[in-house]
Amino acid sequence: MTSREELAQFLKKEFPQNKATIESVGERMATVRHTVGEAELRPGGTVAGPVMMTVADVALYVAILGEIGIVPLTVTTSLNINFMRKPASDRDIIGICKLLKLGKTLAVGEVTLYSEGVDEPVAHAVGTYAIPSRPR
Amino acid sequence: MTSREELAQFLKKEFPQNKATIESVGERMATVRHTVGEAELRPGGTVAGPVMMTVADVALYVAILGEIGIVPLTVTTSLNINFMRKPASDRDIIGICKLLKLGKTLAVGEVTLYSEGVDEPVAHAVGTYAIPSRPR
Amino acid sequence: MTSREELAQFLKKEFPQNKATIESVGERMATVRHTVGEAELRPGGTVAGPVMMTVADVALYVAILGEIGIVPLTVTTSLNINFMRKPASDRDIIGICKLLKLGKTLAVGEVTLYSEGVDEPVAHAVGTYAIPSRPR
Amino acid sequence: MTSREELAQFLKKEFPQNKATIESVGERMATVRHTVGEAELRPGGTVAGPVMMTVADVALYVAILGEIGIVPLTVTTSLNINFMRKPASDRDIIGICKLLKLGKTLAVGEVTLYSEGVDEPVAHAVGTYAIPSRPR
Repeated sequence: MTSREELAQFLKKEFPQNKATIESVGERMATVRHTVGEAELRPGGTVAGPVMMTVADVALYVAILGEIGIVPLTVTTSLNINFMRKPASDRDIIGICKLLKLGKTLAVGEVTLYSEGVDEPVAHAVGTYAIPSRPR
Repeated sequence: MTSREELAQFLKKEFPQNKATIESVGERMATVRHTVGEAELRPGGTVAGPVMMTVADVALYVAILGEIGIVPLTVTTSLNINFMRKPASDRDIIGICKLLKLGKTLAVGEVTLYSEGVDEPVAHAVGTYAIPSRPR
Repeated sequence: MTSREELAQFLKKEFPQNKATIESVGERMATVRHTVGEAELRPGGTVAGPVMMTVADVALYVAILGEIGIVPLTVTTSLNINFMRKPASDRDIIGICKLLKLGKTLAVGEVTLYSEGVDEPVAHAVGTYAIPSRPR
Repeated sequence: MTSREELAQFLKKEFPQNKATIESVGERMATVRHTVGEAELRPGGTVAGPVMMTVADVALYVAILGEIGIVPLTVTTSLNINFMRKPASDRDIIGICKLLKLGKTLAVGEVTLYSEGVDEPVAHAVGTYAIPSRPR
């Protein structure tokens, strides 16, 4: 199990452009936050789709590395996202990931995305990741 | 039909954070480019997944607006992407979108993503968009 | 709310070829069972993919009609399924659907698929349905 | 390369319940037909979703085995399908698969589905398959 602090440091160093932060990680789950400011909005006063895709992708990555340790070359192999409701323009996006499968070479997880403080989710994603084989 | 110039201006104004540029648009297609620099890379010397998701999303948006005119509130309702090969770290990402359906309220399209100059695609996406009803 | 009995009768009459049966329905959920016999197997002694896709599709349909009443023309607009583990050849497939969104014209739900009596799911699907507009 | 006849015999023997037939296979493509009769219809006088999912799945399987030989344990790992138009109730469903990637252990392909003789596709699917490692 990898701690939130270790993962936060790893993301900061290896993904300096990433703006999502880790709220919690563990027990095959992860919660990630993305602040929403001018740069995240699109016409209609709502959050741009790629911001939510990014949150889903980061939440999956963090949930997996939280279980297997820092294996940076773990990569997304597929992502499917459904946008369900208009996100608020003045609330952060919160992504909550639950892993559905954690095999030796493949992980599958789902991410439910919320506008912070709103009950109904704004989007839902399912992603698969390939885990490189590694020495034991 | 909306011209490349009109769409480029619209993107620049309404999506100032967007880094993808339009190479061509028309005949239910669009080609979009995303430069690849330090900010787009991830461990493994390859392009980060969210960059490719963004290119797919923008290519779909541009292909649709190229047909229906600038209807900014056209929004992504789903996106499915499969990552197939490792993108080159020193080549731009090119996304080529073809619309599969352009209805009054729903559009569906596919996007094939390439590392510029490489024959085999790096990823493939299918997205759906909701088009708001509008006065005629 | 539509009862299990009403839905079972409706399926029997309108989808006579359907082999999936309703275990329960209500509170934005549905559980569906598909018996597994020779006709459901494929090489490798496992359940054929289309059987599981069918269970996912029926579970979504039943969960939606359980909420909105028998609106037969409610139709699937997309389905995404990930196969995660090999299903047992001698156990029924159980699909448990939870609706994520139930709007006036669009519903989204997820289905987790199990080999009966086995904890880890064999597959996971997300589907979207279009609900026709109807008199009130 | 595996011939249409060999694949047809293999399907007949190993998937006796399968009703889809192979029209052609080769050059990383396959065309599959599913007859449409009473058993394939659903309310609304249209073809049931699971029939189209089955055609997509079979077309992918045939296209892959057409390239790699008869490796029965090749299995679907994911399928994403978008339904775009109402299929005709009195026309067969034709699925045309093109492989996008054929790796040693993973294949990805897309399938466009038609009502025979109608230009605009009724659905579009993308699937991934795992190919078991095998002796050379």
